[in-house]
Amino acid sequence: MAATLITLTTDFGTKDPFVGIMKGVILGINPQAQVIDLSHGIPPQDLMAAALVLCHSAPFFPRGTIHVAVVDPGVGTQRRPLLIESEGNFFIGPDNGVLSLAVEGKKTSQIIDLCHDRYHLKPTSATFHGRDIFAPVAAYLSLGVPPQDLGTKVNGLTEFPWPEVIKNERTLQGQVVYIDHFGNLITNVRRQDLGALAPETLRISVGELILRGLSHSYNAGEEKGYVAVINSWGLLEISLFKGNAQLACGVKVGDRVQIQGGQQVS
Amino acid sequence: MAATLITLTTDFGTKDPFVGIMKGVILGINPQAQVIDLSHGIPPQDLMAAALVLCHSAPFFPRGTIHVAVVDPGVGTQRRPLLIESEGNFFIGPDNGVLSLAVEGKKTSQIIDLCHDRYHLKPTSATFHGRDIFAPVAAYLSLGVPPQDLGTKVNGLTEFPWPEVIKNERTLQGQVVYIDHFGNLITNVRRQDLGALAPETLRISVGELILRGLSHSYNAGEEKGYVAVINSWGLLEISLFKGNAQLACGVKVGDRVQIQGGQQVS
Amino acid sequence: MAATLITLTTDFGTKDPFVGIMKGVILGINPQAQVIDLSHGIPPQDLMAAALVLCHSAPFFPRGTIHVAVVDPGVGTQRRPLLIESEGNFFIGPDNGVLSLAVEGKKTSQIIDLCHDRYHLKPTSATFHGRDIFAPVAAYLSLGVPPQDLGTKVNGLTEFPWPEVIKNERTLQGQVVYIDHFGNLITNVRRQDLGALAPETLRISVGELILRGLSHSYNAGEEKGYVAVINSWGLLEISLFKGNAQLACGVKVGDRVQIQGGQQVS
Repeated sequence: MAATLITLTTDFGTKDPFVGIMKGVILGINPQAQVIDLSHGIPPQDLMAAALVLCHSAPFFPRGTIHVAVVDPGVGTQRRPLLIESEGNFFIGPDNGVLSLAVEGKKTSQIIDLCHDRYHLKPTSATFHGRDIFAPVAAYLSLGVPPQDLGTKVNGLTEFPWPEVIKNERTLQGQVVYIDHFGNLITNVRRQDLGALAPETLRISVGELILRGLSHSYNAGEEKGYVAVINSWGLLEISLFKGNAQLACGVKVGDRVQIQGGQQVS
Repeated sequence: MAATLITLTTDFGTKDPFVGIMKGVILGINPQAQVIDLSHGIPPQDLMAAALVLCHSAPFFPRGTIHVAVVDPGVGTQRRPLLIESEGNFFIGPDNGVLSLAVEGKKTSQIIDLCHDRYHLKPTSATFHGRDIFAPVAAYLSLGVPPQDLGTKVNGLTEFPWPEVIKNERTLQGQVVYIDHFGNLITNVRRQDLGALAPETLRISVGELILRGLSHSYNAGEEKGYVAVINSWGLLEISLFKGNAQLACGVKVGDRVQIQGGQQVS
Repeated sequence: MAATLITLTTDFGTKDPFVGIMKGVILGINPQAQVIDLSHGIPPQDLMAAALVLCHSAPFFPRGTIHVAVVDPGVGTQRRPLLIESEGNFFIGPDNGVLSLAVEGKKTSQIIDLCHDRYHLKPTSATFHGRDIFAPVAAYLSLGVPPQDLGTKVNGLTEFPWPEVIKNERTLQGQVVYIDHFGNLITNVRRQDLGALAPETLRISVGELILRGLSHSYNAGEEKGYVAVINSWGLLEISLFKGNAQLACGVKVGDRVQIQGGQQVS
């Protein structure tokens, strides 16, 4: 069965026609393809934001979806254009780490260097591989062209250096990895990182903020102002009720988050 | 006949993948659904803007369309998730007033509390019901699942407190309710509120601006600068020709508009 | 064969539901139409930006695509709504120059004044012809209604005054015509304008910047900071590596670009 759902994640913004042009190329090759925008608001050249967006979005798409990510400061150089098949889904983009979080810890069937240029647009520019390589390759794949026809198998990919959470007995140290449109501060601390620490005992500090306890929903902020929740991506997030935490407290991506807590009474 | 057109109205912005994730959920359930973005630029938590956008957009969609609105500061609390069937169209969202203008003055067939969680995504988060409740319910409805299977009938909904126009014999007092991308000041004064006042006699004041007469098109501003028109939503709007009225005069949502006029000569 | 791919280019932004409303109108008339956003981030009333976006995007869409452009400061006046058929593609929009670059130098089969109002929405507003004229006409055309049924043939169209490059023996003078989301400065100088000047000899000045030589890709900026490339539209562009040239050097649309060079050694 050919996949026909293609998602796009780029740092192209929505002011210019670059995304629309990619869709024109895709639909010219496969008029049945359905193209969905994941995000075009990735900050320019921000590989971590793109990798995060892709890895937390892909699980909500049906099996067989083709995910295209184009955040590509090295366009036109020797960095390889890749296709990764992983657990029935497909990831297409430059080999600069942008795809790596989405396939981390998952079974990878094959990695293809997309070097067969008969599937590329001609003439192929050195400045817009989204249009000239990634869009047409995704379209041909959605038509049923087998991955191995699109290039040659390779063994590894460039991995994005994901910042690890530093764990001690009753303390964790993480960092802010993404700030969303609402100004919510999303950290690299996963639900499972909290381990046996009791949610109500947590003391969470970031910048000059100190929060106590984990809340169930944003609405707890009606009394407390700032709340810490496990968000819809399974990550610890600091939010200001009906406000913008980033604007209010000036925290930015990369800032440290400290967490202390007591053991859960079992 | 199953409806297959689904619109989305949210305050999620376009920087993050939240809207794309909702589309992934919808298309995973019903690959035939067609999802159209109405607006994701609703100011965060601004129920009035969302209610206005929805009620003025829905009439331009074909009968049977499913409109999903997610502006939801109370997500994760006891506020109910609703489905309203009204004159052959469907409105899905939280029961916080966001849906009420769209069905005001219309025949409502049924209101359903979307409590049947077999149609929700599992695990269901307390922070993103757009993804976990509203998107899958819209998708199942578009597949032909009857509304009454999605929850239990209820009798009323939370109504948004629409600001009424205050009318005296020859004066009206309204307010600015929405400001668009061009900086046009859209008021709550409907064409029919003007009643027998002659358009050419109107004296319209907002902030420090005073305008005389109602214009047919924006282009009248070529001579006059600011113009007052009845806009494409049937509402009185103040616009600055080839400029941005909001930036130029500092008026904001909630500011008062005063209208005086003489009787039409019949 | 009826075309079913429709693109939209507007200055409506994405905050308001105006684009979504146009899609509702289109899909109400032709549920099989596929609507693609080219750009809604055209600066308000900026005909040159819209004309440029349209002419550089249309070639990447399949033959038979219907391109709708609504940048329309004269809406509600006597300016004509047009349909142009050119080399198998269709262009719909106001006759104010916004369509002219896309058909310049191409074979035009017919130009239609869209005056047959049985294909317009009723009542037809004087403020939103995107919704009331251009969207329904595009939808009927996509259903197979012949162009000549949609209005009457006319002989010419308003042409956008494209700024010409001034050429002397070894110097060119152009200007910045568009600045993209990355802050790249796109000029009106086409690859072919450089003629016999050797790329490595070029001295390019804009604002207070002076660049030497033409680079193959953005990545050359890793050493040089600013680079000049021929971009994906075939135009000379000045870019700051991993930065925003516009913010860094303050150049704006309309600023002059001077190019000097030596002859290629043949």
